[in-house]
Amino acid sequence: MEVGIIGLGRMGSGIAHRLIGAGHKVTVYNRTRSRTEALRSAGAIVADTPAAASAGEAVITMLADDPAIEAVMAGPEGVLQGLAKDRVHISMSTITVALSERLTVAHRHAGQRYLAAPVFGRPDAAASGKLFVVAGGDAALIDHCQPLFDAVGQRTFTIGDTPAWANVVKLSGNFLLAAMIECLGEAIALMRKSGIEPQRFVDVMTGSLFAAPAYRTYGELIAAQQYEPAGFALPLGFKDVRSVLAAAEAKGVPMPVASLLRDHFISAIARGGQTLDLSALARVAAENAGL
Amino acid sequence: MEVGIIGLGRMGSGIAHRLIGAGHKVTVYNRTRSRTEALRSAGAIVADTPAAASAGEAVITMLADDPAIEAVMAGPEGVLQGLAKDRVHISMSTITVALSERLTVAHRHAGQRYLAAPVFGRPDAAASGKLFVVAGGDAALIDHCQPLFDAVGQRTFTIGDTPAWANVVKLSGNFLLAAMIECLGEAIALMRKSGIEPQRFVDVMTGSLFAAPAYRTYGELIAAQQYEPAGFALPLGFKDVRSVLAAAEAKGVPMPVASLLRDHFISAIARGGQTLDLSALARVAAENAGL
Amino acid sequence: MEVGIIGLGRMGSGIAHRLIGAGHKVTVYNRTRSRTEALRSAGAIVADTPAAASAGEAVITMLADDPAIEAVMAGPEGVLQGLAKDRVHISMSTITVALSERLTVAHRHAGQRYLAAPVFGRPDAAASGKLFVVAGGDAALIDHCQPLFDAVGQRTFTIGDTPAWANVVKLSGNFLLAAMIECLGEAIALMRKSGIEPQRFVDVMTGSLFAAPAYRTYGELIAAQQYEPAGFALPLGFKDVRSVLAAAEAKGVPMPVASLLRDHFISAIARGGQTLDLSALARVAAENAGL
Amino acid sequence: MEVGIIGLGRMGSGIAHRLIGAGHKVTVYNRTRSRTEALRSAGAIVADTPAAASAGEAVITMLADDPAIEAVMAGPEGVLQGLAKDRVHISMSTITVALSERLTVAHRHAGQRYLAAPVFGRPDAAASGKLFVVAGGDAALIDHCQPLFDAVGQRTFTIGDTPAWANVVKLSGNFLLAAMIECLGEAIALMRKSGIEPQRFVDVMTGSLFAAPAYRTYGELIAAQQYEPAGFALPLGFKDVRSVLAAAEAKGVPMPVASLLRDHFISAIARGGQTLDLSALARVAAENAGL
Repeated sequence: MEVGIIGLGRMGSGIAHRLIGAGHKVTVYNRTRSRTEALRSAGAIVADTPAAASAGEAVITMLADDPAIEAVMAGPEGVLQGLAKDRVHISMSTITVALSERLTVAHRHAGQRYLAAPVFGRPDAAASGKLFVVAGGDAALIDHCQPLFDAVGQRTFTIGDTPAWANVVKLSGNFLLAAMIECLGEAIALMRKSGIEPQRFVDVMTGSLFAAPAYRTYGELIAAQQYEPAGFALPLGFKDVRSVLAAAEAKGVPMPVASLLRDHFISAIARGGQTLDLSALARVAAENAGL
Repeated sequence: MEVGIIGLGRMGSGIAHRLIGAGHKVTVYNRTRSRTEALRSAGAIVADTPAAASAGEAVITMLADDPAIEAVMAGPEGVLQGLAKDRVHISMSTITVALSERLTVAHRHAGQRYLAAPVFGRPDAAASGKLFVVAGGDAALIDHCQPLFDAVGQRTFTIGDTPAWANVVKLSGNFLLAAMIECLGEAIALMRKSGIEPQRFVDVMTGSLFAAPAYRTYGELIAAQQYEPAGFALPLGFKDVRSVLAAAEAKGVPMPVASLLRDHFISAIARGGQTLDLSALARVAAENAGL
Repeated sequence: MEVGIIGLGRMGSGIAHRLIGAGHKVTVYNRTRSRTEALRSAGAIVADTPAAASAGEAVITMLADDPAIEAVMAGPEGVLQGLAKDRVHISMSTITVALSERLTVAHRHAGQRYLAAPVFGRPDAAASGKLFVVAGGDAALIDHCQPLFDAVGQRTFTIGDTPAWANVVKLSGNFLLAAMIECLGEAIALMRKSGIEPQRFVDVMTGSLFAAPAYRTYGELIAAQQYEPAGFALPLGFKDVRSVLAAAEAKGVPMPVASLLRDHFISAIARGGQTLDLSALARVAAENAGL
Repeated sequence: MEVGIIGLGRMGSGIAHRLIGAGHKVTVYNRTRSRTEALRSAGAIVADTPAAASAGEAVITMLADDPAIEAVMAGPEGVLQGLAKDRVHISMSTITVALSERLTVAHRHAGQRYLAAPVFGRPDAAASGKLFVVAGGDAALIDHCQPLFDAVGQRTFTIGDTPAWANVVKLSGNFLLAAMIECLGEAIALMRKSGIEPQRFVDVMTGSLFAAPAYRTYGELIAAQQYEPAGFALPLGFKDVRSVLAAAEAKGVPMPVASLLRDHFISAIARGGQTLDLSALARVAAENAGL
């Protein structure tokens, strides 16, 4: 398939390499052009504008946040201008539900198509094609794009006809992740002040009730009080919790644990955690216990 | 080993049968005597008092809460009276940290020994020897009792020399479990009000980030709004969250998610959930969203 | 002084009448023109556009929320166009800190002046000149406008040179008010379930520690479970709590009680409270207690 | 009236002096006898035991907490032993609802009478007879004791026939007080990080919506970051919030703001606030904002 990729951070680059490896004809665009070099060497065409990267059958956006998406959508050099009729924009970024809804409408008005397909997984999973893809939108269109998802993901979950539903699911997943960190943080603060070796507690949990990689990974980081380097930066986690709160507010759903997380993210950043990993959310629990 | 079992609820009965099956010489005691019949048929000796059930090398207590333990400990017919010098009381119940600390002292003063060995697992896991045992206390003594743990559990985790540490770990595990239910409840309320099929969300979560049995089991119950029968009754979960809050207060650790859970347990019970399953904690999130 | 008033809801109308009564030359503008009739009879000039209402020495805006302000500011018929150089826009509405900051900049760029002067008090206080005015901006300019404030308020508090500071203070005051209602609601739920007459509790509080009109007014409404008519509508209170949370987020300040209020506002509205009074925030506490 | 006073801390001493001044015949008891000297000089009889102090028509207890009350009640030298049939024990201490209920029963069984009459006011109000008395119990009995209340208080509020109701009201008042401090703390943290002089905010609030002494007193302390000396010590406020939570739990009432206060009290004490004033609750809000 002829496919464009806009956004070559660690996630987008991994995805682009996987698509090239799977035999797709890949065009890439990145605002900072230097990041395109490795992909050019690997066989990608380098586009000068988002519009040029959108000239194929599909264009994938993989950017940091709403403003970054909006910046590549509009204007004469934007995706909406470059994408041909009936071609598809696949938004893989972790964006808000509201933006995903606006993109659905904008592409429909332009006679184009739109899928939301946010992913779970860190950059190494992107590079090795082990992402989990959460796809929302027209079922036949998702089927049509399945080869793209197969190149980057180990599994694709379809959520339903409404693209933004996939964003609700993705954001809620990140909420569960941040909540898990908060809870581990509270429990591990109790371990530390009780004199119990935190890693033992993590071993029990991940050896019994919670034998999930997320518990193991973050449990170990929190037990070791290792808050950097930032595999998934605290401000990004904060953005996602705010996004899930915004989506829930729009639907009339109170989410008190998400509200509590929001407060702790603000506190973590106010106390100097701007550049730390998501695991540093647990530092708030520790500091609040006088540790 | 000659071992007594006090408390023949579903958990205690399962444990007793496993110990008989493993070849141990088992004496049982239960306040309501009718529950002892099946075990007598299986080969157990039925004791008339807690003291009589404590006459062997070890006595295991498996009761509902602190008052139930305290009721079998004291007096001329109690465990403290029946247990010989250097023999061991193994407390497998989910009791408070404070009671476990008092038992440690009481047995030491009586020249007896004490292990805390609370377990993770539902009654079916007890019956099939698939519990997870969390053991706290003297390492050599735990080794000595390992055949008992092996008969009932698939794995034993040792926490350290202080028996009550095992209770801190057990209660914290139950805190994580209740917190998971609350968070799933909040997210699933959002799914329902967004028009998304809740089970799809559960499938994504348990197929990606949270491939743990606890997420699957409770995710399905909450998605289906199935709040009974009570596999693990709401009031028991409430007791455990109060116990973890009490332990944390004693150590100077705020646990805001646990506080929030406490409020939601109170609300769930006040709104008629007294006899429901732990999954009904999620009903509070749904009702608060107007569902 | 020649002064325009934009926005003739109950607050704005009361202010306009007071200014006329004090001898000022008043021009009024309202999107729905029918509301201008009473003021025309009272001697006001009725303007056709916001710009026309801004042709005097000062223009006061008193509108429901940010979008309403933004709607009258821009375009060829807007305030920015109509206000002459060095003339002043006085924003009395309860708007966000961010909008107040943008207005400060916009007027400065246009060579105009800007004061934020939000008020405390209900419509009857506006009509009788008993408002409390919280003024932020240039001290000399506030002095110059003091006759306007004196016409509508019983007292003017100056906060400092930065206009938006007055909005921070006003929003924080509304936060304290909503928090008071929440806390009274929790306590009164306890009274009701304890069998204690709620009004007795209110009498004790307002007769001892909290002899403030706000406690008396809302205490009586909550004790009587009187949630309508909406003197101050629930959705407006919700807006203010969101605004204070946004201001606090921008400054890196967690406000956990405000977060909790936000959740309870969402719940109150989701459970059918859209048209109720702010006092209905207390209904959430009651319902969560099974009342 | 012949009246005993047990507990001569700053509150109890003030009350005793007031009763002597009003012409009552006062007998005092205090565990630490040195505190009785000033009262002996003022005309009080000094008793050697709680029982001896309970030999008159009425005995008032004014002690720090539940254990202190329980310590003077029981045994051959205790109040229950010393009080004659039909004589009355007036509990003015801020005790739990549960203890007040137990005292009601105990005195009834002993053929004695019991009133709960906790008070609002600091030691200086006790010394000057300016307390607010909240009286629960038999109306005729309260009437009979009114001369005692008049000697120490500026006003007596009667709550109803059930003595413990007065304790519910008193504890709820202290909850409102701690909640006010928390909310002022959050708002003042926002002021400080916004660059606004905190005292200006306090002046606006106490000059408009919240013209109550409690707001003024604590607002000034928090604005000035003055957390000592401890007029009302943080651990005492913590005790009261725990007591109101216990009362609410017993009645099935979630009190989420009280839960949040409990967490912040734990944090304040864990971070070194053990000896500080109640105003130091606001330090948690400040520290959580990185101040």
